[in-house]
Amino acid sequence: MIKNMTEDQITLYIIKSLKENRKKEFEIITDELQPYDIAKIYEELPEKHKKRFLLFLNTDLLADLIQELQKEEQIDVLNRLGIEKTGKVLDLMDNDDLASLLDDLSPEKIASLLSGMKKEESKIVQDIMNYPPETAGRLLTNRFVWIRDNYTVREAVDKLKTFAEFAETINYLYVVDQHQKLVGVVSYRDILMADAHEVIRDIMYERVISVLVDTDQEEVARIIERYDFLAVPVVDEKHTLIGIITVDDIIDVVIQEANEDIEKLSATGKSIDFETKSFVAAYRRLPWLILLLFIGLVSGSIISTYEETLEKVVALAFFMPMIAGMTGNTGTQSLAVVVRGLVSHDIDKKVVTKLVLRELSVGIIIGLTCGILISIIALVWQGSFVLGLVVGSSLLLTLIIGTLAGTVIPLILYRFNVDPAIASGPLITTLNDIFSLVTYFGIATMFLNKLM
Amino acid sequence: MIKNMTEDQITLYIIKSLKENRKKEFEIITDELQPYDIAKIYEELPEKHKKRFLLFLNTDLLADLIQELQKEEQIDVLNRLGIEKTGKVLDLMDNDDLASLLDDLSPEKIASLLSGMKKEESKIVQDIMNYPPETAGRLLTNRFVWIRDNYTVREAVDKLKTFAEFAETINYLYVVDQHQKLVGVVSYRDILMADAHEVIRDIMYERVISVLVDTDQEEVARIIERYDFLAVPVVDEKHTLIGIITVDDIIDVVIQEANEDIEKLSATGKSIDFETKSFVAAYRRLPWLILLLFIGLVSGSIISTYEETLEKVVALAFFMPMIAGMTGNTGTQSLAVVVRGLVSHDIDKKVVTKLVLRELSVGIIIGLTCGILISIIALVWQGSFVLGLVVGSSLLLTLIIGTLAGTVIPLILYRFNVDPAIASGPLITTLNDIFSLVTYFGIATMFLNKLM
Repeated sequence: MIKNMTEDQITLYIIKSLKENRKKEFEIITDELQPYDIAKIYEELPEKHKKRFLLFLNTDLLADLIQELQKEEQIDVLNRLGIEKTGKVLDLMDNDDLASLLDDLSPEKIASLLSGMKKEESKIVQDIMNYPPETAGRLLTNRFVWIRDNYTVREAVDKLKTFAEFAETINYLYVVDQHQKLVGVVSYRDILMADAHEVIRDIMYERVISVLVDTDQEEVARIIERYDFLAVPVVDEKHTLIGIITVDDIIDVVIQEANEDIEKLSATGKSIDFETKSFVAAYRRLPWLILLLFIGLVSGSIISTYEETLEKVVALAFFMPMIAGMTGNTGTQSLAVVVRGLVSHDIDKKVVTKLVLRELSVGIIIGLTCGILISIIALVWQGSFVLGLVVGSSLLLTLIIGTLAGTVIPLILYRFNVDPAIASGPLITTLNDIFSLVTYFGIATMFLNKLM
Repeated sequence: MIKNMTEDQITLYIIKSLKENRKKEFEIITDELQPYDIAKIYEELPEKHKKRFLLFLNTDLLADLIQELQKEEQIDVLNRLGIEKTGKVLDLMDNDDLASLLDDLSPEKIASLLSGMKKEESKIVQDIMNYPPETAGRLLTNRFVWIRDNYTVREAVDKLKTFAEFAETINYLYVVDQHQKLVGVVSYRDILMADAHEVIRDIMYERVISVLVDTDQEEVARIIERYDFLAVPVVDEKHTLIGIITVDDIIDVVIQEANEDIEKLSATGKSIDFETKSFVAAYRRLPWLILLLFIGLVSGSIISTYEETLEKVVALAFFMPMIAGMTGNTGTQSLAVVVRGLVSHDIDKKVVTKLVLRELSVGIIIGLTCGILISIIALVWQGSFVLGLVVGSSLLLTLIIGTLAGTVIPLILYRFNVDPAIASGPLITTLNDIFSLVTYFGIATMFLNKLM
């Protein structure tokens, strides 16, 4: 019925049904809505209607709703539900989502929430929470259908029918032997095309690509992206099938990892979004800024060591920001190329040498172009040929240094398993500040008598 | 057979089969490999073996192989295949991948490639190429199964069986009316659970979420991510079903969009990766750097207007890099928060005001902390209370300005439909350079007589 209604009409209709306490109408509409839509409506709902809204939703939809909400709201909703209903709802949630919901709650809170759940379900959730963060184990769900290799196609289809409701995605069926070891995979399509009496072992695809529970989530994302999978099976070291990771979780991982790179490149500090409170945001950003404040003072003290030079030729100060800025920027450019390159590339000696040489020649080309340009400008502006020469040659040198620093530093960090994005923009920038000032004033001092 | 072989063993085995010209062995192995693996092996293959490798692969695998390769290699392979085989292979490729392959080739080359293809296939490819870049139209595939709303479940399953081989993913079936208009969707699971005689219209889900051909790919990604879909149907303005977009293409979009944000934030210049030649890379990076060179000179000329002040109190120069650097950095931090926030948020007045106020108070908190800190340092280092006051108050002001600039500028750009990431790190940084210098020297000049 609602397929032609606008979102606002739907919301109004729902509010009406809540006001007039018409559960039936409410259910007819919500049954046709996507979890995301239900969550949006709930969030916009006037406080006074929320209670009944939750009362009217059946446990399935409640589970869907909660999975779409922000952490604080999730807890809020659970508190409104009351312990007994909460248990039922949590049983229905994807256990990877549930695990991340519980993640940084107090042990007491976790215990009380899990207490209401089915033993086996809460067991699984606790297992998931025991895997290190950002690993495959944290993303896996047990809502999938496995079949035995000795099943016939008919037996497989029967099992499917029984579990279809509960299975998250049944696009592939993973095949296990009598020890629950993963031995193959059949696509839904294969089943459909095969005859009822064929044995799974004969139609399954044996070389099934899987990940280990402790595989890093970035690696899992890379595999799903390369192979265009909709899901990937997760096994333990004994190759026992533990669960599957579905592509929808992987999209979230990809977005999250990209944001982390950007946060680090811009030293934003961890996970600040539109909802973060100002004090929290400031607190997360301050450490970086204070560090940079001191590094900035280093640049300052470098300048102070050249106080004499500066006093004699104040004009040198005019080009300081430009040189420092350019060097810092070219460094950031190289850094960004490296950091994003690492997302999709496997790094070996060959790649590294190729990359470093590439960036070196980029530095030289850029340096020559800008160096010559600035020499002319300096000459015209300050009417001093020597000054032009000093500024130009400094820029040439510092741009080359800057480019290399932006390339080599992240690669070294990567080599030692430090996340290269940590060598964030500001850090490279400030290091390059220092390089550039030393070069600039160094050269200037050499030509000092000619400059005056 | 190969399920227990390492990648190297597989490669060696394949080379062996090529050397000894054993097509059978070659086929047994390649049949079990994933497209990505076949591509990897082909790339690593010694030149002298590539010809036969392509000769041995059947057209299906050739199509798979080409879809996994870089553009240059794709063209190279097609050239090796010869016009007639090329046609067959192109017919089998996903038409969205084919469209992006042809995208920036010469019209002649495109014509000659399409000439070998089936009329209807090449027609579709040309249609796709006519959609604007980065829209849904460019990502859609016609390799999907649609069913009529008046089919029975049995008829639907029969159609599935006929088309399963050809359908890209058959997790959902999209339902159309007699005019090919999209009227519903049934999941594979629904079909499986329903009785053979039920009519699709009665079991289908009517409120099907779809995108228009000209929807921006970022919006498509947002929809698939929100609803955790595996595919989304694409319709024209008449709501006629044209094709579907599958989640695997969306993962690539998400990665691509994230890279674009980073490129812009770091002003890397468009699409520079590990493969880009140095001259190209330099050429793409130079425009930004030259722009920044001139903006940098603006800072310089500002300083030059305060030449007197600077000559009288050279110590002021010591704090320049720190103040400029900090202001620039805090701006970049805010910018990153905004740019990434826009990825997942819908922006309205409420959100904007909330955000700006948040960042304002963040700026104040940060400014006070760092301002007081630096005043003390300046006092201790240079032994001048006034200097400490000047530096401290300047930093307080500039940090507030910097934070606001980093928040407001991208939001304004967004408001006027300019990609806010364009207000890239360096740009904000340099603007903030200028703000900070004016503030710093302005305040310093006011206190000049006290400073000396």
